[in-house]
Amino acid sequence: MLPALSRRLVLMGALLLPLLGRRPARARPALSALPSAPPSGMPPDPLPSWSPGPSRERILSFLHAVTTPGSPQFVPADERIAVFDNDGTLWSEQPMYVQLAFALDRARALGVAVDRDDLMARGNAALLDLLTRTHTGMDTEAFAALVRRWLAEARHPTLRVPYTALAYRPMLEVLAAFRAAGFRTWIVTGGGLDFVRVFAERLYGIPPEQVVGSSVVTRYEDSGDVPRLLREPRLEFLDDGPGKPVGIHRAIGRRPIAAFGNSDGDLAMLRWVTSGPGLRLGMLVHHDDARREVAYDRSSPFGRLDRGLEEAPKRGWGLISMREDWARIYAGSEGP
Amino acid sequence: MLPALSRRLVLMGALLLPLLGRRPARARPALSALPSAPPSGMPPDPLPSWSPGPSRERILSFLHAVTTPGSPQFVPADERIAVFDNDGTLWSEQPMYVQLAFALDRARALGVAVDRDDLMARGNAALLDLLTRTHTGMDTEAFAALVRRWLAEARHPTLRVPYTALAYRPMLEVLAAFRAAGFRTWIVTGGGLDFVRVFAERLYGIPPEQVVGSSVVTRYEDSGDVPRLLREPRLEFLDDGPGKPVGIHRAIGRRPIAAFGNSDGDLAMLRWVTSGPGLRLGMLVHHDDARREVAYDRSSPFGRLDRGLEEAPKRGWGLISMREDWARIYAGSEGP
Repeated sequence: MLPALSRRLVLMGALLLPLLGRRPARARPALSALPSAPPSGMPPDPLPSWSPGPSRERILSFLHAVTTPGSPQFVPADERIAVFDNDGTLWSEQPMYVQLAFALDRARALGVAVDRDDLMARGNAALLDLLTRTHTGMDTEAFAALVRRWLAEARHPTLRVPYTALAYRPMLEVLAAFRAAGFRTWIVTGGGLDFVRVFAERLYGIPPEQVVGSSVVTRYEDSGDVPRLLREPRLEFLDDGPGKPVGIHRAIGRRPIAAFGNSDGDLAMLRWVTSGPGLRLGMLVHHDDARREVAYDRSSPFGRLDRGLEEAPKRGWGLISMREDWARIYAGSEGP
Repeated sequence: MLPALSRRLVLMGALLLPLLGRRPARARPALSALPSAPPSGMPPDPLPSWSPGPSRERILSFLHAVTTPGSPQFVPADERIAVFDNDGTLWSEQPMYVQLAFALDRARALGVAVDRDDLMARGNAALLDLLTRTHTGMDTEAFAALVRRWLAEARHPTLRVPYTALAYRPMLEVLAAFRAAGFRTWIVTGGGLDFVRVFAERLYGIPPEQVVGSSVVTRYEDSGDVPRLLREPRLEFLDDGPGKPVGIHRAIGRRPIAAFGNSDGDLAMLRWVTSGPGLRLGMLVHHDDARREVAYDRSSPFGRLDRGLEEAPKRGWGLISMREDWARIYAGSEGP
C-alpha cells in the first residue's frame, strides 16, 4: 500500500482542511418522483438519502435491468457481483486515511511517536517504517484485536465521532439495494485487508471473505501450544491501481458487473469491470461538497481524481456529485 | 505447486497401478440404523453412499450439534465454514494429478511433448519448465477456455471416462449436507486456483470465489482494445502444507470449523481449523481400497499420508476408510 499512501501523503500537511461543514438534509424525494421502479424484493424507495437525478436513476435502472427476467440485460444471480472501493467511496478519507490515523496512534502507544509533518517530509522509507512497526510482528488475531479496540476508542480529529460514524449513508443504501437485488457485494480496497475486515461486516454488512485488500506476508507457525499466523514486515500485495483487477481475479475469479470508486486508483477496476460483455455499471464518487465534507479532485495528491474526470465520459461511467446527489452524507452523525 | 507436485512425481513411474477395480455398491443402510438424526433442513438420509460406521456418525453428529439452537455447540450461520482439499479428497489423484495430465497433453498439443518418465527423472526444473510452457503466457480467459475444452475431451487413462466422473460420490454428499446445514463450502487445494475454478462450480457446486489454490503472478494490461489479465511464468503462491492456513486466512479471513483432507499436505490446514475454540471437525480420507480405487498412504510419495496417520488419533481427527466407510466411490461411473 506504500506508493498509493505516500502519493497522497503529501496532502497530509494540508491538515488545514476546512472543518467538515454540515447543512440540513434535503427532504426525501416523493415516491412519485422516482425515476425508475425499484427491482422486486426491494423497499419502495431503496435510496432515500439520494436526491432525484441522473446518478440515482442510473443505479436503479441498472438494478432493474439486470434483475428483470426476460429483460435483454438480465443477469443470472450467480453473476451478480458488485465491487466497492472503501476509502473515499464507502467512508471518509479526510483529513487522512483512517488506517494512517491508526498507525500514528499505535506508534504513540508503542512509545515511538511519529510526527505527521516529519513523516511526510521523510517520504516512503519513513512510512514503510511506521507501517512495519505498527502493523506487523504480531499474529493475525492480536492485530485484529488492536484494530477493534482502537476503532472503539478513537475519534475523528475534528468531528469528534467514531470513524465508523463517517460511513456514507447513501452508499450504505446502495450496498443494501444491491444485496436486495441478489448481488454479492465486495470491498476492493487499497487499504489493509486485515484492517478493513475488522469493521466491514458490522459497518457495511460485508463479511471478511468478501474483502479484497493490500496485505503483508503472513507465516504459519506451529511451534507453541497453538498454531498462529504471524504478520511479517513485508508487503505481499498492493491492491491499488492495476492491482485491483488482479486482486479481484484472485479472490473472486469472475468479473463483477458493477464497480464504485472515487479516485484514479480505482480506474483500472472500473475499466476491468465495465469492459466485459452485457450491461455494466461504473460509478465514481466525486468529492465536490466543501460545505458538508471536503471538496477535492484533480489537484489533490490524496484521493486524487484527475484522469478519472477525463475517462468517465469516454468510458460511460457515472460521476456521483456528493453535493447534488446526496441528500445526506454520513451514517452516524445526522440521524436516520 | 512445485515442491508438492515434484515430491509426488517420483511415484508417477509407478503408473503400473492396478486397474481401478470395482465392486458392487453395498446396500444403503436402513434409516432406522442411522446413528444420528440429520439436522433439520436435510433429507432424511443426507449421506446415502456412506456405510454405517464411525465416520458417517461423526459427520452427522457434528452437523447436528453446530446447527441445533440451544445446543452448547451451536455455531451461528456466518461462522459455518468448511474447507475441502481437492486432489485425493474430492476426486481421484490416480494415476496422477489431473492437472499434470492436462500439462502433459497441452505440451503435446504445443509440439513440445514431454515424456512422463523423462520428466520424473529430470526433477523440479523440468516440471517448472512444463508448467511454465503449458500454464502461462496467455490471459486468464484463454487459460480457462483451454482447461474447459480439455476437460470435455480428455479421458482417464485406464477407466476411459471424463475426469469429472471421478469425483467421489460420498464427498459430493458431504458437500451438499454441509450446505444444507447452512455452511459455505470452500476448496483449499495445492492445485492451480484457475485450473480448479473451471470445474468446481459444475462438479461440486462451489463457485469460483470459494476456491483457494496455488497461483501464478497475473499482470493487468490495458494496452489493446480491451484490458486483459496475463498469466506470467512465475509462481505467486503455493497453497500446500503450511501455505493452506495462509491461503485460508487471506481468502476467508475467518477460521473454518471443519476441514477434510487426505494427505500430509493437509495437516497444517486440519491443525489450524481444529485448534480453534468450540466444536471442530477434522477428517482425513484414507485411500485403503485397492479393489475399487488404489491403496496408498505412508510409503507413497504421491498423496502421501504418513505423519497424518500418527497425528490423527492425537489430534482427534477422524480417518475415513474408503474401503469400509464408502458404499460407493465415484460420482459418474456407478450410476445414481
